Amino acid sequence: MSLDAVLTRIDADLSAATDRLMELLRIPSISTDPAFKRDCDRAADWLVAELNRLGVATEKRATPGHPMVVGHAEGDGPHLLFYGHYDVQPVDPLSLWDRDPFDPELQDTRGGRVIRGRGASDDKGQLMTFVEACRAWKAVHGSLPCKLTFFLEGEEESGSPSLVPFMKAHADELSADIALICDTSMVSRGVPSIASQLRGMLKDEFTIIGPRIDLHSGHYGGPGLNPLREIARIVASFYDEETGRVAVEGFYEGVHEVPEEQLRQWQNCGFDEAEYLTSVGYSRPHGERAYSTLEQQWARPTLEVNGLWGGYNGAGSKTVIPSEAHCKITCRLVGDMDPDALRAKIRAHVEARLSTDAKLRWDKDLEGSPASVMNIDRPEFEAARRALTEEWNREAVFCGMGGSIPIAGYFKSILGLDAMLIGFANDDDAIHSPNEKYDLRSFHKGIRSWARILDALR
Amino acid sequence: MSLDAVLTRIDADLSAATDRLMELLRIPSISTDPAFKRDCDRAADWLVAELNRLGVATEKRATPGHPMVVGHAEGDGPHLLFYGHYDVQPVDPLSLWDRDPFDPELQDTRGGRVIRGRGASDDKGQLMTFVEACRAWKAVHGSLPCKLTFFLEGEEESGSPSLVPFMKAHADELSADIALICDTSMVSRGVPSIASQLRGMLKDEFTIIGPRIDLHSGHYGGPGLNPLREIARIVASFYDEETGRVAVEGFYEGVHEVPEEQLRQWQNCGFDEAEYLTSVGYSRPHGERAYSTLEQQWARPTLEVNGLWGGYNGAGSKTVIPSEAHCKITCRLVGDMDPDALRAKIRAHVEARLSTDAKLRWDKDLEGSPASVMNIDRPEFEAARRALTEEWNREAVFCGMGGSIPIAGYFKSILGLDAMLIGFANDDDAIHSPNEKYDLRSFHKGIRSWARILDALR
Repeated sequence: MSLDAVLTRIDADLSAATDRLMELLRIPSISTDPAFKRDCDRAADWLVAELNRLGVATEKRATPGHPMVVGHAEGDGPHLLFYGHYDVQPVDPLSLWDRDPFDPELQDTRGGRVIRGRGASDDKGQLMTFVEACRAWKAVHGSLPCKLTFFLEGEEESGSPSLVPFMKAHADELSADIALICDTSMVSRGVPSIASQLRGMLKDEFTIIGPRIDLHSGHYGGPGLNPLREIARIVASFYDEETGRVAVEGFYEGVHEVPEEQLRQWQNCGFDEAEYLTSVGYSRPHGERAYSTLEQQWARPTLEVNGLWGGYNGAGSKTVIPSEAHCKITCRLVGDMDPDALRAKIRAHVEARLSTDAKLRWDKDLEGSPASVMNIDRPEFEAARRALTEEWNREAVFCGMGGSIPIAGYFKSILGLDAMLIGFANDDDAIHSPNEKYDLRSFHKGIRSWARILDALR
Repeated sequence: MSLDAVLTRIDADLSAATDRLMELLRIPSISTDPAFKRDCDRAADWLVAELNRLGVATEKRATPGHPMVVGHAEGDGPHLLFYGHYDVQPVDPLSLWDRDPFDPELQDTRGGRVIRGRGASDDKGQLMTFVEACRAWKAVHGSLPCKLTFFLEGEEESGSPSLVPFMKAHADELSADIALICDTSMVSRGVPSIASQLRGMLKDEFTIIGPRIDLHSGHYGGPGLNPLREIARIVASFYDEETGRVAVEGFYEGVHEVPEEQLRQWQNCGFDEAEYLTSVGYSRPHGERAYSTLEQQWARPTLEVNGLWGGYNGAGSKTVIPSEAHCKITCRLVGDMDPDALRAKIRAHVEARLSTDAKLRWDKDLEGSPASVMNIDRPEFEAARRALTEEWNREAVFCGMGGSIPIAGYFKSILGLDAMLIGFANDDDAIHSPNEKYDLRSFHKGIRSWARILDALR
């Protein structure tokens, strides 16, 4: 009965909840750009005030970067820690937005009502689903459903430089029974999803140096070693075009096949492969031939070139053999792949293929983080899955995620906490892009979903 | 006697001549970049004023691009046409210059005094050797040595788009007995050289388009087609790494072997292979294994990548699968290679290797010009060779050139004019590169060389 009262309260309060979210969206808390430092601070202040209003004893906590928002509420039952982030991505190219990214509004679209504005989905709208669920609970019951810790950061979109030091310094304060993270999307529209595995990440960058200086391609074309030709050959050698596999020796060490049962679940999870591919201009998947699109995205590692450059790229032409060529790569890691070991393998691959007279320079070591697999055998996962199924009237699924959210790994390694990733974003939310939006349905049913989950877990 | 007086005058006037060259070098006449359009105009104006001061009736002549400078001086004896160019290459990467490229100065180096600055060698310093020889002649004799036409262009470094139309439209005005071109280098330091064959040139540029928009490499890494991987594979496919040959089908059609006798001459022309290679950081030549360094440079064709870019190249990393990847190429042509036929072969090679879902866009057709072989049986060539031998106290040689000066071919095909290419640049002049310089000795003895050649030809 009491859950119904909370859900009724949520429905009645939706308009006010949306207004509150709009307030937060109006604060341009772009964490990567120092020009918005004060705005990040204001967003943190806004959340501190909101949480204190709910009876959560909350403070802004200084870091070398943007502040953390940390709040505690006593209560019975399990101790849940909720994580979200209040910072947002930059908005460029601004010319592609159909309105001021920080003047949000409700819009009617073919896909339904949406909240349009930077951060609407990633992650202000998502984090507010949990806050609003707590607010409704408190309004109905006079207290929160259980012991709660809020842990909200302001540097997620700029690499979270303060996160690990802060977690380590405050490990006791941040202890709990399980962490809840609301920063992921649903596997398909209307299909409630719990992310049960995330890929890890390795970054690296190298430069190939040919001649000592840029050369004239008439004077040295022929005898001259061209680092652009060299880097093209080396990048091409990363891949086996027959199989679509990465051809770096030992690359797949630590990669495991997806269990049959999980594969079957994924096949029925509502993922719309055709829509996923055609929406960006593909007629077929381009990864490893032996695996399905979903496996390629969720369960297989990648070696991706994110930037490649050298020589002249201005208007017209320049007859140059450049001195240097550059390449930025990232790998997505799965299973037990070890970032440090993988870095060494990739570097050895490049070094072994270098021509006489070509020199190689690696960037200072860039970060790496292993893949995360959630502990879905914990009873909280099945309880949350049932709650989501009820709310969305559609079997909730455990799905993989192609992206990397290192926080889940940190909760485990630093705090010993399992994390449960539940989010209500859709693939077309345009996060990190112009015209970001969050479906009003995601916001509304997201709040209701958390109320049900809190009810199931308390 | 009168030649001695001219040479004496040249020696006495060297300091003033250097100052005049500095003035011209201060004008940043980068023809390929529209931002410098006014500066190209200023360089043309400067030359018009200089030539009029010598009694050459000179005008700036409009073209759709940068203006031509055309001047005529009446006189007895043969009618010589002198060609040079007043435009210069871009200066990037600016950070590698040890000073402002357009604030030239005299510097003492281990190799002697040099004039440092963009265009010092290519081609402002070289063209001024001829102008200063005329000035000294006029100062001593009160008139120029023979009938002269000056034809100076401002688009040589950006493909000379206006050159052919202008020559065709003004063929009568540009008629002469022979053309003199000062835009080449000496085969080795101190060895006076007449270029008897030049490679031709073909330019092209293509873009490979993968996804419709930039993608997140977590969300699409695996199934996503990455155009950077695609372009690396295609660039790598241009070459047969075993033999060092270009692997485009039919690429070598029209290429001829160098006759035995010419090869023997080249072997004795003073080319210092070790210096040529080690000065830029090479321990061996990197072209076709079956040919010598000189053949690779002068008599063999190339397919060179001059620019390759796509994705993120800023600080840090960005987990992007970019929508586009770009490649600029140039080929050097020899023998009877046909630029248009070659363009079609290269485009077919790329198109045939494109993956499903990758799209290809070629730049609007860029120019091409075949190789040139000079008519060294004309008596002016032997006369000039003797004059150069006298000035440099070293047997002058007929050599090949790796670069492309399409103008020589145009003089022949449009105006019916043979061209004689004599230049005083050195291989270490860093033309098209940071810290370009021209040896003061090249400038000084270059002026003296032209005085001797004019004396021999008049």
